[in-house]
Amino acid sequence: MIGRLNHVAIAVPDLEAASAQYRNTLGATVGAPQDEPDHGVTVVFIELPNTKIELLYPLGDESPINGFLEKNPSGGIHHICYEVDDILKARDHLLAEGARVLGSGEPKIGAHGKPVLFLHPKDFNGCLVELEQV
Amino acid sequence: MIGRLNHVAIAVPDLEAASAQYRNTLGATVGAPQDEPDHGVTVVFIELPNTKIELLYPLGDESPINGFLEKNPSGGIHHICYEVDDILKARDHLLAEGARVLGSGEPKIGAHGKPVLFLHPKDFNGCLVELEQV
Repeated sequence: MIGRLNHVAIAVPDLEAASAQYRNTLGATVGAPQDEPDHGVTVVFIELPNTKIELLYPLGDESPINGFLEKNPSGGIHHICYEVDDILKARDHLLAEGARVLGSGEPKIGAHGKPVLFLHPKDFNGCLVELEQV
Repeated sequence: MIGRLNHVAIAVPDLEAASAQYRNTLGATVGAPQDEPDHGVTVVFIELPNTKIELLYPLGDESPINGFLEKNPSGGIHHICYEVDDILKARDHLLAEGARVLGSGEPKIGAHGKPVLFLHPKDFNGCLVELEQV
């Protein structure tokens, strides 16, 4: 069911410093910051040859990243995103297997303009898993 | 400098259950467990079309994964691994940039039989970063 690893998301306490580090110290291709007000984050994508790293920084007081950075002041890996062909079919299969989908259970439109869902970390070895329909 | 994302490593409290979940619930291609006594882990590789997930389970009392699972009993993302062409050149560049290399600073042979190094998580947004020469 799952396809490519679309991205690994890393929450960072300083988006400019983290972008500069990936660009200069690690020599990667780093994009420009994009505000995603619907998700309460500003994101920077780092293009690797086979996948992406998504740097996440809080946007607004209600950002879901605020709590994560309070617990992890240096930052940390926030989630991983797997691609699926049909997100509703994937969701229904996972629900039938006993996995929990976060929020309303209906896909939202993610940072790439595609439908996404998040799965409960307790059901997936402590990892927050995003599914993105491609 | 960094190339492909070689793998994302997830520490799991039950290797058999996690393997079965990736195989059956998530429909991925899951390999057989491999003991890596030099690293104190048993690993299972999950082959995605563009990269791998490495499930990590402690092997022995001195396993570096024991402490992680004590702090994260459900498991969690343990590290990410970037490929580099020349690990000694990468190391020297990172040291010159002020990053810290864990252990002796000399590459060890990793789970794929290739030289690897680990970088200090505090220097990389709270992420443990492995570099693997390919």
